Amino acid sequence: MPSTDDIVSLADIDAAAERIEGVVHRTRLDPSNTFARMTDADEVHLKLENMQRTGAYKIRGAYNTISRLPGETTKNGVIASSAGNHAQGVALAAKKLGVDATIVMPEVTPAAKIEATRGYGADVVIHGEIYEQAYKHALELEAEHDLAFVHPFNDPDIIAGQGTVGLEMYEDCPGVDTVLVAIGGGGLISGIATALKSKNEDIRVIGVQTEGTAHAKRTMESDEIYEREEIDTITEGIAASRMEENTATIVRELVDDVVEVDDAAVTEALALLTERANTVSESAGAVPTAALLDGKVDVNGETVISLISGGNIDLTELGELTRTGLMHLERYVRVRLALSNWPVALGSVGEVVTDAGAKLDDIQQEPLSPAAKENRHLVTAGIEGVDREHLDDVVAALDDHENVELVDELG
Amino acid sequence: MPSTDDIVSLADIDAAAERIEGVVHRTRLDPSNTFARMTDADEVHLKLENMQRTGAYKIRGAYNTISRLPGETTKNGVIASSAGNHAQGVALAAKKLGVDATIVMPEVTPAAKIEATRGYGADVVIHGEIYEQAYKHALELEAEHDLAFVHPFNDPDIIAGQGTVGLEMYEDCPGVDTVLVAIGGGGLISGIATALKSKNEDIRVIGVQTEGTAHAKRTMESDEIYEREEIDTITEGIAASRMEENTATIVRELVDDVVEVDDAAVTEALALLTERANTVSESAGAVPTAALLDGKVDVNGETVISLISGGNIDLTELGELTRTGLMHLERYVRVRLALSNWPVALGSVGEVVTDAGAKLDDIQQEPLSPAAKENRHLVTAGIEGVDREHLDDVVAALDDHENVELVDELG
Repeated sequence: MPSTDDIVSLADIDAAAERIEGVVHRTRLDPSNTFARMTDADEVHLKLENMQRTGAYKIRGAYNTISRLPGETTKNGVIASSAGNHAQGVALAAKKLGVDATIVMPEVTPAAKIEATRGYGADVVIHGEIYEQAYKHALELEAEHDLAFVHPFNDPDIIAGQGTVGLEMYEDCPGVDTVLVAIGGGGLISGIATALKSKNEDIRVIGVQTEGTAHAKRTMESDEIYEREEIDTITEGIAASRMEENTATIVRELVDDVVEVDDAAVTEALALLTERANTVSESAGAVPTAALLDGKVDVNGETVISLISGGNIDLTELGELTRTGLMHLERYVRVRLALSNWPVALGSVGEVVTDAGAKLDDIQQEPLSPAAKENRHLVTAGIEGVDREHLDDVVAALDDHENVELVDELG
Repeated sequence: MPSTDDIVSLADIDAAAERIEGVVHRTRLDPSNTFARMTDADEVHLKLENMQRTGAYKIRGAYNTISRLPGETTKNGVIASSAGNHAQGVALAAKKLGVDATIVMPEVTPAAKIEATRGYGADVVIHGEIYEQAYKHALELEAEHDLAFVHPFNDPDIIAGQGTVGLEMYEDCPGVDTVLVAIGGGGLISGIATALKSKNEDIRVIGVQTEGTAHAKRTMESDEIYEREEIDTITEGIAASRMEENTATIVRELVDDVVEVDDAAVTEALALLTERANTVSESAGAVPTAALLDGKVDVNGETVISLISGGNIDLTELGELTRTGLMHLERYVRVRLALSNWPVALGSVGEVVTDAGAKLDDIQQEPLSPAAKENRHLVTAGIEGVDREHLDDVVAALDDHENVELVDELG
């Protein structure tokens, strides 16, 4: 039995599971033969919290927390600050419980997320340029209007609610060896680790952060909670600068290791999740799978669960990030070409690329520059192929064409 | 009991289900509250055959068919012609059964699909400019090398295999009122209709085609099989020009109606499936959902299943089609703007769009043209917003800025 039971215990998580039943979806484990093959694992399963109501796991903890608050505490409503999934989780949980909710969102929040949160019936207050200012304003409103503040990760009821994800993992895959979970403030992994280690202390629980958000490893290895000064990452869903007391304690005690991935690996994972698993993850949701596919954890012969924690991503952002992922995977190149015999050579570019079994994604004329010789037209072309060797063949075939000359390949 | 039982019966489909068990995934029904709300249905469920092995339902029929062929027939191997999902279905089914497979693919087949088919162990022969030529070459090879030809849709064993999709729908949702299924050659809907009508003849089975592939409605309403001359659509996965004898007979007898959608509705459905259901569909796979969301079928108060038949789509194509879908949904505009005070006004464009809670997706300078006045720079900008009204506000705010003038909005 974990020594952190005084914060959150298996019994707390079991109770949370009963409370949320019928309110949140019981999400599935989806097997991926492709990812198992790529990582030499015996089995890889994706836990699809991107298919959860509101598109993320946050509804679990929010519902568990708000449902436990006495009517006296919630009579004026609850309040939270978030630009993301916590906002929608609290809004829907409050609606389901007949409690008023106010969500403070920073000014940069996209209109779509504001609409979604309002769509669940919450009052949205826009305040502050960054999250910290929205957070402080929420605390002011809490005091002013006697509201109940719902913390995004440190509250034991939040942790117990998120822990239901771990219970479901264990029920659906009791032979699991390793579970990979992203860490922002640590609420999710604290709940999951409590559930899994209570069931079987040999199950390995690995936290994953992006390099531009990483703080948990240092907190794990010290008695102090490490707080980072700056955050620089595409994974805004886990962009917390530190853990808090409860999550830090549980992560230190129960999590086996924390590994870090770079944003490039996240774009690769996003591309492969979209293409091979046919599932849409937000960037933070792809972080554990990035660690898995990037070889950050040895899972040779193991049964592995990688958690997709959320799927709230703009279509335009998804398009951009997956294309970047294809470039990192060396399946997409952008080249600058100098063409003679304009405009006939435009057709030649299309022909050469198509004949090589590749796809001409786009082609654009550039203004003249020293890179183009006299009597040449400069174009930039995006080409999608199977792998680096294939793309090299395509680019060489273009360069060999009498009317086409390769100027350079763009990173 | 359907009158078409002499072609395919429920018993045939039950037998197919036993054969394919453990080989193919039993795919899930995923509830969508969003789509139910959008269509006034009581419940909408998505049957996710895009999560099937090889990314599409075709493996079901292929495995059922090949497993039923006598060893004498398959001793030299099986052959099929396809540029798409049938190729991978036959290749993997043959591999699982220890049978050699040859797939003839037309020259236009992207390298990625060739690689995937080879990855399942098939010999790939590239032949012909279009599918018909590949098909004829496959028949020649069949005769020459004494191979067994696996038809993509008309064989009763193929139909029975695809019918297992209908069995699973009924098992998971016996109260279903209406099922929407795309039609190419009609094998999938023939199997599903046989299964469902055998269980409960009141379940409504609706076929869906895109306008540029439509032929089934005319065949249903006549004794002749109608064959279209030209196909023009983004849904290449259902680009068959006609049904054949067996599928035409079953569709006439068992399918309640066939409706048609345009390609624009398919891009909208693709965008909403990606964004709201977090699932990746190929364009043909989104056709039934397009009919549902476009109001082609009245499902008021009903329990509906919309089948996503496959998810094999290039990431670049997915990105393009979902963005087109956003434009049709009036959530994305491209505008041409004439800017004075260059280049400071570039920043103003970004500020105005962001302040309005919208997203500046891209901005590109255009060559000068009469659309730009003297002393103005012309740019094209892509802007993502919440709805038409929001975009109108954003565009009006841009036009109101002292350094920005709206030239036109691009379709």
